[in-house]
Amino acid sequence: MNENPPGLKEIEAAAERIAGVASRTPLVQSPALSRLTGHEVYLKLECFQPIRVFKIRGAYNKISLLSQSSVVAASSGNHGIAVAYSSRLLSKKCTVVVPETAVKEKVDTIAEYGAQVVKAGRYSNEREAKARSIADATGAAFVHPFNDPDVIAGQGTCGLEIAHQLDDIDAVLVPVGGGGLISGISIALKAMRPRTRVYGVEPQGAPKLTEALKVKGVVTVPSPASIADGLIPSALGNITYEVCSRNVDGSFLVSEEDILSATKTMIREARIFAEPSGATPLAPLLSSSSRAIGNRVVLVVSGGNISHELLVKMLTS
Amino acid sequence: MNENPPGLKEIEAAAERIAGVASRTPLVQSPALSRLTGHEVYLKLECFQPIRVFKIRGAYNKISLLSQSSVVAASSGNHGIAVAYSSRLLSKKCTVVVPETAVKEKVDTIAEYGAQVVKAGRYSNEREAKARSIADATGAAFVHPFNDPDVIAGQGTCGLEIAHQLDDIDAVLVPVGGGGLISGISIALKAMRPRTRVYGVEPQGAPKLTEALKVKGVVTVPSPASIADGLIPSALGNITYEVCSRNVDGSFLVSEEDILSATKTMIREARIFAEPSGATPLAPLLSSSSRAIGNRVVLVVSGGNISHELLVKMLTS
Repeated sequence: MNENPPGLKEIEAAAERIAGVASRTPLVQSPALSRLTGHEVYLKLECFQPIRVFKIRGAYNKISLLSQSSVVAASSGNHGIAVAYSSRLLSKKCTVVVPETAVKEKVDTIAEYGAQVVKAGRYSNEREAKARSIADATGAAFVHPFNDPDVIAGQGTCGLEIAHQLDDIDAVLVPVGGGGLISGISIALKAMRPRTRVYGVEPQGAPKLTEALKVKGVVTVPSPASIADGLIPSALGNITYEVCSRNVDGSFLVSEEDILSATKTMIREARIFAEPSGATPLAPLLSSSSRAIGNRVVLVVSGGNISHELLVKMLTS
Repeated sequence: MNENPPGLKEIEAAAERIAGVASRTPLVQSPALSRLTGHEVYLKLECFQPIRVFKIRGAYNKISLLSQSSVVAASSGNHGIAVAYSSRLLSKKCTVVVPETAVKEKVDTIAEYGAQVVKAGRYSNEREAKARSIADATGAAFVHPFNDPDVIAGQGTCGLEIAHQLDDIDAVLVPVGGGGLISGISIALKAMRPRTRVYGVEPQGAPKLTEALKVKGVVTVPSPASIADGLIPSALGNITYEVCSRNVDGSFLVSEEDILSATKTMIREARIFAEPSGATPLAPLLSSSSRAIGNRVVLVVSGGNISHELLVKMLTS
């Protein structure tokens, strides 16, 4: 497999490929969050994608390039939704391996888009092993959630849009799961807006990027855990690590309490129904830890597939 | 003022004008609602606009054509948000007259976009009189929420997108306030997809379109009322009536109970956080009254500015 990270040209090609399927999502200033944080806060609303999460960008780009007639994916939920949705549009047969702990709404959505759902284990490495064994047995193409140049190129279209939508950005804050989104965004921004800094934000319980930048190599977190269920792979991939080590200007580690507080603030003050993973970039701005990142800040609200129970809690507690 | 309804050419010009400001919103199939209703249900997600409501289309198109440096609008909320947001982008001074009963979140949003908010009366005619008197006194341009060819052309871009996004549509169901959205959509669809039928859906407490189609002329409803607070102008305008009488294939009247049930279903089953006005087109499909409209149905989910209190009620009751 090609393991070279994509460049701007591959991201621009992905943008043409996904046009009409993925949305060019709004980038809007939030007066409420600007007032609350003291930054000039803009939100890149990936929760307004057709499937309410950015992952449609990478999954559709990848699957549209495949020759195989069937695909298999391992996912904590959102990547699975994206692969199922894209496979249906591209008339591919689809199997998705989800963790036993997956959010019910996400599993239902995957099944409703016509994919076969298989439950296996709790961590990403267990799901990935299961998915790869299905791929080997059936000839289906395995679609990795982040460590794949075509997936990264797809996610990079989000960065391409940000560069076209707003000038003079000081910093872009991106939630970090396996690093596909921040890799794609940083490749686009470093090519088009070299002055803009790109920061990762991840849960203290899953410090894949922070540790990797510290030791200058991929680090496997033994038992990653967070309410931000899109951000708990065990490690970056070799490709996303390579991109992050070159492009990312720093990372913020945030507590579970801060993620919940950010989710509640996003929902109640900005009226954006983000899932915890998508609200995570707001967390550093609610503490005093973000002063140094500059005034004009874009938060990538990566998704909005919040569970019914948690949404009620955020609205009523 | 020009009182000729726009044609397809004016709608296409509006689409170029609003590109990059209003979103080309997703049109997605809803497996959950399809299963529940027995129709093949697609949702046109205007609640994913930057301001979470379609009205940015018409307001931005209109205001970008004005020579005046200040504007004034009368609005139950969403039109006011759209005019405030558009005015700021176009560097115009903005005043918005809202009803004393307006949803708090909407009023806050208008103020946060930099508009001056004036409260007056309960019904649209009271607000409009106040806004026109401000326009007369200050030289500001009055931006009507629906009875204006440039506003209608802007809303029509929603219909243009639907025609480009999906083939073989049997019916499009559109919520009816003053008729701006259904006028614009019906002009685009009748030009591009003459086979597709366009239906209005409105609250029993505000049967402006239904009564107008019956008596073949504009009807003023004495005390329009509904939980769907975007659908309670007193009457269609002369321009929107003219378009509707020519283009609209029929209308559905729905009860308050059915609107609430549709809102709850949209939020809990489709996981789309629609406001009652935006969920109204689902109501006929949840009863047996919609059999005759055909299989493939597009519901225009016009907005998502639901109040905190109502959202909690929809999630927990």
